[in-house]
Amino acid sequence: MSNLREIVHRQSVRQFGIQRIGVGAGSSASADTDVVATEEPLEIRLGYSRPDGGQRTEQSISITMRTPGNDEELALGFLFTEAIIAKREDVASVGPCGPPAENGLINVVRVELADDVAVDLDRLERHFYTSSSCGVCGKASIEAVSVQGRFDLHADGMTIGRDVIASLPEKLVAAQSVFAETGGLHASGLFDARGEIAAVREDVGRHNALDKLVGSRLKMDALPLTGLGIIVSGRASFELMQKAMVAGCPLVAAVGAPSSLAVELAAEFGMTLIGFLKRDRFNAYARPDRIA
Amino acid sequence: MSNLREIVHRQSVRQFGIQRIGVGAGSSASADTDVVATEEPLEIRLGYSRPDGGQRTEQSISITMRTPGNDEELALGFLFTEAIIAKREDVASVGPCGPPAENGLINVVRVELADDVAVDLDRLERHFYTSSSCGVCGKASIEAVSVQGRFDLHADGMTIGRDVIASLPEKLVAAQSVFAETGGLHASGLFDARGEIAAVREDVGRHNALDKLVGSRLKMDALPLTGLGIIVSGRASFELMQKAMVAGCPLVAAVGAPSSLAVELAAEFGMTLIGFLKRDRFNAYARPDRIA
Repeated sequence: MSNLREIVHRQSVRQFGIQRIGVGAGSSASADTDVVATEEPLEIRLGYSRPDGGQRTEQSISITMRTPGNDEELALGFLFTEAIIAKREDVASVGPCGPPAENGLINVVRVELADDVAVDLDRLERHFYTSSSCGVCGKASIEAVSVQGRFDLHADGMTIGRDVIASLPEKLVAAQSVFAETGGLHASGLFDARGEIAAVREDVGRHNALDKLVGSRLKMDALPLTGLGIIVSGRASFELMQKAMVAGCPLVAAVGAPSSLAVELAAEFGMTLIGFLKRDRFNAYARPDRIA
Repeated sequence: MSNLREIVHRQSVRQFGIQRIGVGAGSSASADTDVVATEEPLEIRLGYSRPDGGQRTEQSISITMRTPGNDEELALGFLFTEAIIAKREDVASVGPCGPPAENGLINVVRVELADDVAVDLDRLERHFYTSSSCGVCGKASIEAVSVQGRFDLHADGMTIGRDVIASLPEKLVAAQSVFAETGGLHASGLFDARGEIAAVREDVGRHNALDKLVGSRLKMDALPLTGLGIIVSGRASFELMQKAMVAGCPLVAAVGAPSSLAVELAAEFGMTLIGFLKRDRFNAYARPDRIA
């Protein structure tokens, strides 16, 4: 992918080239590396007997973004907590379903249920991030998002000072009215290059807080978010980056850690991605040139 | 609901009676109140013209757990970031769709699209937590979970020392191998009454970490989790409590804040819920009698 220096590529972590940026007197920026948790889609496929004739059938029931490792447990736990299975004997077999994607990961788990398990899939919560024909992997997820994308962010000319960026978390917390009472909400804030917070939205769900923020701009007919940045109170995931990209936002700053797929999406679409944002320092995972 | 002292009931926050529990020499437990972020389902209904004949139709496209407030923005932002709409003019009207649920909240937003908007719902990510006929609200969500529930947790006789509980976060972090490298993963850990950690699973998604943990026990044929507790690295939401309940776990301890619906679910099913778990103190939101 463009713009991206990926050094280590293990199952559960990836290492990227980043800029470590200090803020304040005597501080500096330096190129370094950082290890990031892998985020890749996992598809769960279910094989079972039809309730009517007993004929075997197969269905894809979930694609969720996960960190590779313990994939079979994830599939079994999902089926159990969604009440599709009730005991170990309900499962005839479980295992990875090849071939590996381009990046070497097998991102499909197939669970064969025993013949006597009656399956009701109507209640299932489903996550469909991608239905690419070329397989289930992070790259396909980014390509699927690409189809939705309306705004070319590579050319967005926003620049912002490092001291301005470092001032944002404090401003975000100051604007969070419900968090102040409960200590328990995610927030998304919109800011300009001078560091002025234009809007903040809160929610128990991180994606909901961002959806509220984007929705508030749509109501004002103020999309795309050209020349503006979004700060999120938690981590930067694929889903948050996708929403910011669709809204035309060139810069996302996360108080927490980014995932591998968040870094890859940012690099692909020309977005600046900042992580571990603190008062005196932060990391830039993609497009650090927007930081003055 | 049983067991639950709810004092204040505003839109975005609720106040519950809790126990504040200190740990170590000279510490004590005292009854107090705590303000908790509200978590309630929101259904988004879409009205649009069929692509074939232009006939108007309506469809429920999402039920998501959210904090009430800015519901119309949430619906618009969701439609925009999911690429169902592209501009303000695509929306003919948006508004709450009554009547209010039992708790006074209107948990349905209806969005009418303009006639010329072509709708493709196939790609949509869907969240269906409940399809109760009695309306969309937290109580209906808990009742829907009730149908899945297999284990009566009111009678689980687990007891655990407050010092043991306070020792758990450190043990969880020590067991998190990927977090140590990346600072960016959720974890779920299983522990017994002596505070021994039996298993830890990590993931970028909080629900995935818990699904992996439950799946690991299913593989060992070691469900339900009678007499055992689960610790989660982040916040306690409805979804996490639901998964723990279905796995038969009588105690959930969260390093972060609980949501209102997490507290309500715990009280309903007889689970002990601990929040803001620190080395020297924590809060008990439901069934504090299991803490010795």
